[in-house]
Amino acid sequence: MKIYNFSAGPAVLPEEVLKRAALEMCDHGGSGQSVMEMSHRSKEYEAIHNECIALLREVMAIPDNYKVLLMQGGAHTQFDMLPLNLKKNGKADFIVTGQWAKKAYSEAKNYLAANLIASSEDKTFCYIPELDSAKFDKDADYLHICENNTIFGTKYPTLPDTGDVPLVSDQSSCILSVPVDVAKYGIIYACAQKNMGPSGLTVVIIREDLIQDVKGQGVPTMMQYKTHADNNSLYNTPPTYAIYMCGLVLKWIKAKGGLAAMKLHNEKKAAILYDYLDGSKLFKSTVEPKYRSLMNVPFVTGNEEIDKKFIAEAKAAGFVNLGGHRSVGGMRASIYNAMPIEGVQALVDFMAKFEKENN
Amino acid sequence: MKIYNFSAGPAVLPEEVLKRAALEMCDHGGSGQSVMEMSHRSKEYEAIHNECIALLREVMAIPDNYKVLLMQGGAHTQFDMLPLNLKKNGKADFIVTGQWAKKAYSEAKNYLAANLIASSEDKTFCYIPELDSAKFDKDADYLHICENNTIFGTKYPTLPDTGDVPLVSDQSSCILSVPVDVAKYGIIYACAQKNMGPSGLTVVIIREDLIQDVKGQGVPTMMQYKTHADNNSLYNTPPTYAIYMCGLVLKWIKAKGGLAAMKLHNEKKAAILYDYLDGSKLFKSTVEPKYRSLMNVPFVTGNEEIDKKFIAEAKAAGFVNLGGHRSVGGMRASIYNAMPIEGVQALVDFMAKFEKENN
Repeated sequence: MKIYNFSAGPAVLPEEVLKRAALEMCDHGGSGQSVMEMSHRSKEYEAIHNECIALLREVMAIPDNYKVLLMQGGAHTQFDMLPLNLKKNGKADFIVTGQWAKKAYSEAKNYLAANLIASSEDKTFCYIPELDSAKFDKDADYLHICENNTIFGTKYPTLPDTGDVPLVSDQSSCILSVPVDVAKYGIIYACAQKNMGPSGLTVVIIREDLIQDVKGQGVPTMMQYKTHADNNSLYNTPPTYAIYMCGLVLKWIKAKGGLAAMKLHNEKKAAILYDYLDGSKLFKSTVEPKYRSLMNVPFVTGNEEIDKKFIAEAKAAGFVNLGGHRSVGGMRASIYNAMPIEGVQALVDFMAKFEKENN
Repeated sequence: MKIYNFSAGPAVLPEEVLKRAALEMCDHGGSGQSVMEMSHRSKEYEAIHNECIALLREVMAIPDNYKVLLMQGGAHTQFDMLPLNLKKNGKADFIVTGQWAKKAYSEAKNYLAANLIASSEDKTFCYIPELDSAKFDKDADYLHICENNTIFGTKYPTLPDTGDVPLVSDQSSCILSVPVDVAKYGIIYACAQKNMGPSGLTVVIIREDLIQDVKGQGVPTMMQYKTHADNNSLYNTPPTYAIYMCGLVLKWIKAKGGLAAMKLHNEKKAAILYDYLDGSKLFKSTVEPKYRSLMNVPFVTGNEEIDKKFIAEAKAAGFVNLGGHRSVGGMRASIYNAMPIEGVQALVDFMAKFEKENN
């Protein structure tokens, strides 16, 4: 049976990428070695490492004054690293639009004065608050947002204008989904397991002037951006196989036409699903239209029993991982880059059939 | 051409394991998903996760009062985590027998009074110092050793007797190579990329009473052992594919007869290589016999030009990654569990031929 995997992450990967990885598993490029077996100091691996970074720079059009860091530990580790590394005046601004934005905010409190600028928790994070940039602290060390909220299915319609304050964005669930102007950010970070590759790799794109020397300030060596930036992310052994997979995904994106093509592809998929939801008498979207994510689409029937029945029948029909996050329930279809249009169309057809049978 | 890969890490993996991974890359167990695509909260992945932990417990005979943590960040991250989490009296003892032992010692100085008990740096770390346990601090929070020194090819012939002070051992390059009595240790830790699987996974085996609650003491949440221990290493998304690979390697070890069989296999391989070196007029081992590692075998000719010639000719003949660590030069053959006896025999045959031609 054909499976369509709507997991929020780790998530579906392009079929072509997995097939190539399978083919190269025991022998990469005639080296007689699996990528997993290569010394991280070997020429073969260094080519893979540097190609992944170069492809990301090319695909995202990253300006020369930004460094790309290939790290470990997930976005959670960044929640600590950001305040530890960016602290200067000892304060930062936070906009809380979901669970991860809230965690970034509460972790930062352990290190500096974290100022809550706005929150959408009053309506279970179903929207992005309108922002008054007059409220932003001009002396803040950074302003943090989570640009796409995986659990609640919202995204920023426009970026906050932070002036000279570095904008730090968690793009874990939207990186590589549309073109972005990297120069508007101080730092973009993302765990790989949604749109980039397998879990275990975290990508940080950082403006060079933000890489402070924090030696002697109690910041663990492995948690200093400078440690990784000074060593081309080879200070210690990086997650080599995850980096190789990320490189394959980036090649796939490039071959498909880059981020402009991804944007069209993702808008088309999202439109199919949202249009159906807006016309359905059984299912409804939980997010105000203006703030809807292209990547994560939560929806409910308003009846927990019917939600459960739907998830079970969908699973039996090959539409897997449609349950909402354990903290909110309902359903959620994550439709990252690698989800084909046919997958979304097939889901909508199945939902229409279910609606007919259950309304 | 058949390749034998003597890399110190990431290193050779069992051929059967790689073949199975290739086979299952696009569809694991009929799930229609790659392991990389599975939600870390799914039943399918949880089974893989828990099986890996259960296999490690079984293969190493880990007592019930120890927890297994599956983490990220490599041994380097442990160099910070150990003092941050074990600090009580604010002092710890260190034995410096190589580059990584020295790094663990110098990183710890950032957090506590690190006491150097003994060092073998006087002779380029070619031996393990004799230890006088009367020198050990009875109030130390822990005593740290690096049990097998990857770069210098030494291993502890016997463990230091630390009494009630927890013995913390970096087993990165010897874990799973021979049976060990886990109860003698407070903590065993190892990066995966030598004897366990791909890089990006770090295994920590920790006695439960050493998992302190350090909340509110400035330790980053992701660097607290308790964060991972309380959540079965699923506090955030773990490196799922690396954990799956580690599970496959553990199954392979079990099928081969477990650690007792690995010990025989490794002793046999090491004997072939050391016996040849001890009889050679061209090559010689750099390590005193008593302290020789079963896993990493450095050797030299005493002539840098001949070393270079050997490494180049060996590479051309399919014996790859035989160069010594960039800090010491010469040659090094890493012969981890996955290196077959035929690989070591073929290397020795090649060395004998080279010796004949160049002596």
